[in-house]
Amino acid sequence: MSSGRSGLSDGGGPTSTQRELGEIARYVEGELVGDASVKITGVAGIEDARAGQLTFLANPKYAAHLAKTSASAVIVGPGIRTDRSSLALIRHPNPYLAFARVLELFAGAKDYPPGIHPTAVLEEGVQVENGAHLGPHVVVESRARIGRSAVILAGSFVGAGSKIGENSLLYPNVTIRENVEVGKNVIIHSGAVIGADGFGFAREGDRHRKIPQMGGVRIEDDVEIGANVTIDRATLGVTRIGRGSKIDNLVQIAHNVNIGENCIIAAQGGISGSTQIGDQSVLAGQVGLGGHLRIGTKVVIGGQSGVTKDVPDGTTVFGCPAREIHKTRRIEAHLSRLDLYVRRLEQVEQALKEMTRNLP
Amino acid sequence: MSSGRSGLSDGGGPTSTQRELGEIARYVEGELVGDASVKITGVAGIEDARAGQLTFLANPKYAAHLAKTSASAVIVGPGIRTDRSSLALIRHPNPYLAFARVLELFAGAKDYPPGIHPTAVLEEGVQVENGAHLGPHVVVESRARIGRSAVILAGSFVGAGSKIGENSLLYPNVTIRENVEVGKNVIIHSGAVIGADGFGFAREGDRHRKIPQMGGVRIEDDVEIGANVTIDRATLGVTRIGRGSKIDNLVQIAHNVNIGENCIIAAQGGISGSTQIGDQSVLAGQVGLGGHLRIGTKVVIGGQSGVTKDVPDGTTVFGCPAREIHKTRRIEAHLSRLDLYVRRLEQVEQALKEMTRNLP
Amino acid sequence: MSSGRSGLSDGGGPTSTQRELGEIARYVEGELVGDASVKITGVAGIEDARAGQLTFLANPKYAAHLAKTSASAVIVGPGIRTDRSSLALIRHPNPYLAFARVLELFAGAKDYPPGIHPTAVLEEGVQVENGAHLGPHVVVESRARIGRSAVILAGSFVGAGSKIGENSLLYPNVTIRENVEVGKNVIIHSGAVIGADGFGFAREGDRHRKIPQMGGVRIEDDVEIGANVTIDRATLGVTRIGRGSKIDNLVQIAHNVNIGENCIIAAQGGISGSTQIGDQSVLAGQVGLGGHLRIGTKVVIGGQSGVTKDVPDGTTVFGCPAREIHKTRRIEAHLSRLDLYVRRLEQVEQALKEMTRNLP
Repeated sequence: MSSGRSGLSDGGGPTSTQRELGEIARYVEGELVGDASVKITGVAGIEDARAGQLTFLANPKYAAHLAKTSASAVIVGPGIRTDRSSLALIRHPNPYLAFARVLELFAGAKDYPPGIHPTAVLEEGVQVENGAHLGPHVVVESRARIGRSAVILAGSFVGAGSKIGENSLLYPNVTIRENVEVGKNVIIHSGAVIGADGFGFAREGDRHRKIPQMGGVRIEDDVEIGANVTIDRATLGVTRIGRGSKIDNLVQIAHNVNIGENCIIAAQGGISGSTQIGDQSVLAGQVGLGGHLRIGTKVVIGGQSGVTKDVPDGTTVFGCPAREIHKTRRIEAHLSRLDLYVRRLEQVEQALKEMTRNLP
Repeated sequence: MSSGRSGLSDGGGPTSTQRELGEIARYVEGELVGDASVKITGVAGIEDARAGQLTFLANPKYAAHLAKTSASAVIVGPGIRTDRSSLALIRHPNPYLAFARVLELFAGAKDYPPGIHPTAVLEEGVQVENGAHLGPHVVVESRARIGRSAVILAGSFVGAGSKIGENSLLYPNVTIRENVEVGKNVIIHSGAVIGADGFGFAREGDRHRKIPQMGGVRIEDDVEIGANVTIDRATLGVTRIGRGSKIDNLVQIAHNVNIGENCIIAAQGGISGSTQIGDQSVLAGQVGLGGHLRIGTKVVIGGQSGVTKDVPDGTTVFGCPAREIHKTRRIEAHLSRLDLYVRRLEQVEQALKEMTRNLP
Repeated sequence: MSSGRSGLSDGGGPTSTQRELGEIARYVEGELVGDASVKITGVAGIEDARAGQLTFLANPKYAAHLAKTSASAVIVGPGIRTDRSSLALIRHPNPYLAFARVLELFAGAKDYPPGIHPTAVLEEGVQVENGAHLGPHVVVESRARIGRSAVILAGSFVGAGSKIGENSLLYPNVTIRENVEVGKNVIIHSGAVIGADGFGFAREGDRHRKIPQMGGVRIEDDVEIGANVTIDRATLGVTRIGRGSKIDNLVQIAHNVNIGENCIIAAQGGISGSTQIGDQSVLAGQVGLGGHLRIGTKVVIGGQSGVTKDVPDGTTVFGCPAREIHKTRRIEAHLSRLDLYVRRLEQVEQALKEMTRNLP
């Protein structure tokens, strides 16, 4: 039952997910424009929504859809209006956030009953706290600890001495190596590998000698880690993902990296060894960061950028090599006009030549 | 026995994979130049092939290998000749396609006997149709449906309510989350994760609040998905991979992306949320596409390009940012000559200075 | 007990990992500056090390840490000194290598007892040699061979006819497809997929017809392969990773690629089909190589480079498209000054115009 969690009564509807619009508006603390008694049975995208459904419009660019949608109600930002009297609006200063909360209402919570599947293999000294769920073919090595109400789904592996915090969720086929600490309310998607050896070798003549990777990984509370992400263990000390940071699919995080709190790292980014990223920074997709860099707080790094130098707090950088974004934009604008510049250079040369010929 | 499938008689050879060259030429509908009775026992690359083997030459650039190969016969394109009378040719307008068909002949079909391995775990309400093969440690959650002759190999996971179509093949350690629909004759390689949550968060002060990802994924018939690919479920609605599209390893496809039919997406490409790609488009390796874009049909995108704008049908783009390919090529040519341009600019400045000095 | 392996006596300390500094200096063949009798109980990074611990300083850039560290001793390169009499030094021409050897001393060796876990599934004809360890839920298909003292951890899969060499280690959830040969002392990290089908299709009208991938993969001795790496099987012949090469996480290696010995390929690199790389070459992170290229020996390729042409032996290339590094650096320097060049061009134009006006 999600109603207990959301603090909403059930609304008396025929199904537990039917809500009255007025109730929803109050729940998200939005301003209702229209009939509060409209019954909402579900949510959908603005192009797919049918009568009885609620949708949202965060981007004014798509405002034209308001005239066409079959939805019964739309969550909108401050500036948006409609002439359609049959279409109710919930106006909200942060429509995307309001929509997230409505989705939670209708998504409900997936229930994983407490217990350990008979095919799971637990080595000696494993501690499983109350309410935890261990699915089929899960393997937990010696001395690992699975926190209260944590969920470890099919085929996942938790290595020796690692800890999975309260209420955290490992989707199927996740690998957590030994001595990794995962905080509370963490979500780790399928195929992610946390704690593989850092990539460290010392040259010995023509050969590469492996540097033992003796450190660990610390994933703090409320972090989300995407599918097939790799986060390597530190050589010594820990690789850290700060509280509330969100990491998209196929990201690579090397040994001894330190990522601050509430950062966003979009898909396929790569962060080289020992680099530090401050709180609240955002990396767009396919970004590459060199090693031993200091990236400040509230930094924004544009897609596919290659960062080779430290970036101060609050700066937006872009490009390869990454420069302050307005510099990269100016260079790009010049590049688009290179043809023209070259022609102008030729004209100048021509004019000079003629002038020289005509001079006495 | 592959002979039944290929429509070829067995040729009476000592092994079931020995064929007469004339028979092979007829099978691929090619023109035979040489002795039809040559026995072919196998296929190999042009540099490795031995007597009795068949090879192919699709790229005229490698024509010099024809003089040296030990193969008994070569499949070639229209323009290719050889002086070696001992070397038979099968000439074909599409030699690569002809070679594919010959490989099928010699590869045979791998057989997975129908049945469910005793270590597989099936939750209640799972429906497994005739001829399906479920390997060791496979897990299928409640209400999922495995189609006729589908093959699910060791350690793979199929989530609640998902469907795997007839004759589809999941290699070991694939993860299919809940409410994912996989069509017929689909191949999914190891480590792929289909249906992980889309990467969606709403800002709430300094924190990021997860947007529940309530949609699904639809993989249409004849699609192939590479190893460790990630395809996220939609926020609402579906993420779609159109019929016949082929996706290489380590590609990231975000929530609500819509890929048309018969597209090719090479390794490590990344497609951001809600972007649409038309039929027959080709993305080279490591391409990045921004979100909410419309990429047309028969578009070609060069390797490592970063696409930030819509691309019309039939266009070839390249670069970062991606421009029409001839524009990017011109810019690159100018960049190679920048040194020269700067010297010419200096000469002009110098000449002007002298002229000014000499003027009365 | 690591002492047997390292050739060091136990030093008589209270724990088996306590060593005297003089003993360590002799072991790594370094020059001791300070008290040989100092007891070393462990190793740590220079900022985290406490009294009794040994640390290292390979990069002179971080020499300032010498004045502040709480470590009892530091391994340093030739030029480094300190005024702190209480701080012992071990001077070594290759401090990173010396540190690697010290780490081995303190890391010890993880022990996997010989045996096959009862939940492992072995098909008929599998050969497991003495001392091998097969963990829970491992699956080994028919006729595969697991060498002496090899370790296959939980959930890993070894396909039909594949061989895992003596003393090699597969971390949890690795997938080795059929007909893959893995040499001795190889380490393969979690989530890696070796031997998935190469990405090969022949056009047949609007559709793409799969080219059967009938070849294999050969991983030579002493190779290390990172987490979630994908190495595809050859169409015909083999995809090869040469002896001693080290491959970082999330790298993609396409069919028929041939990588020489002792190469380094950093994270997220992608190598297209049939490309060859000579011995001792180094690819930085996120590099992309086109297909059918010949990259020489001792080549260095800078991060995020896109290589579209052959690269001769001993060359360092960088950029997208990759050029010799000094050329790319010059272009980058010019790009930073484009604004200035354009202003100078405008001044020249202006001066010419005035001159023309003033001419008789």
